[in-house]
Amino acid sequence: MPMEIERKFLLVGDGWKAGVVETRRLRDGLLARFGEGKVRVRHGGDRAWITVKGPRDGISRAEFEYEIPLTEADEIFALCDMPHVEKVRHIVPYGGLTWAIDIHQGALSGIEFAEVELEHPDQPIPMPPWAGEEVTHDLRYRKATLLEHNAALLRTKS
Amino acid sequence: MPMEIERKFLLVGDGWKAGVVETRRLRDGLLARFGEGKVRVRHGGDRAWITVKGPRDGISRAEFEYEIPLTEADEIFALCDMPHVEKVRHIVPYGGLTWAIDIHQGALSGIEFAEVELEHPDQPIPMPPWAGEEVTHDLRYRKATLLEHNAALLRTKS
Repeated sequence: MPMEIERKFLLVGDGWKAGVVETRRLRDGLLARFGEGKVRVRHGGDRAWITVKGPRDGISRAEFEYEIPLTEADEIFALCDMPHVEKVRHIVPYGGLTWAIDIHQGALSGIEFAEVELEHPDQPIPMPPWAGEEVTHDLRYRKATLLEHNAALLRTKS
Repeated sequence: MPMEIERKFLLVGDGWKAGVVETRRLRDGLLARFGEGKVRVRHGGDRAWITVKGPRDGISRAEFEYEIPLTEADEIFALCDMPHVEKVRHIVPYGGLTWAIDIHQGALSGIEFAEVELEHPDQPIPMPPWAGEEVTHDLRYRKATLLEHNAALLRTKS
């Protein structure tokens, strides 16, 4: 089963900017929830996907992703009730791992995270100097919570 | 936008059996609902799909269907809360249209329908002698309702 294993950190400073190897704009829409899972539609560059994510198990969850035509993605975005999340994602390799620095726009403007995707839940992570407090398990930093609180939380922190 | 335009009828007798040109077994799982839409996973023959259906507009609704790997379909079926619907679908051409005769198994065993897919909502339908009462707009014959009532309704009718 394809798994997403991911840890999430707050950013400290902007030292990560020197390491950016790729930047893309992403748009993310929550189409449906089921139990603890969800179905998302995502658009990045000139490609789009529909994604099924299963319930979380620690820092892991099943993730199924299928590419779909761009025009159909726009039509599926229009079916989403929740506001879309828009972010600029910078890819920064560090210590053999690939980090994603997400700078949110729109509804979550001002919110910034560093995420690293792993092969195994207990994989050691060489920590970059610009990765601060870990918020992987902090419910306050889940996208849905952030959208509900309209980004007020992190704005007071920054 | 890809649309599904469909009308549904009860069956009268088994005259349709003489016209069957193809038969396949289908398995259908409701993964998630959103507003009046839903996300389904479907398995038929040696292929599988994930399907997004938008809200109904009369007898029409947006329908997006993407083929997915069989092994992943099984894993997505395992994420579905509702019982899967299993049916044998017989394809019967009649009067220039293609009819699907669905004979349900498992949770909806005993339930049989004839469905015809159209190009336009007001398209005239040459009626086959084995198509009886139309139940397109009858909420009692929606899959979700039928599953909830555990097929009791139609069993008493047959």
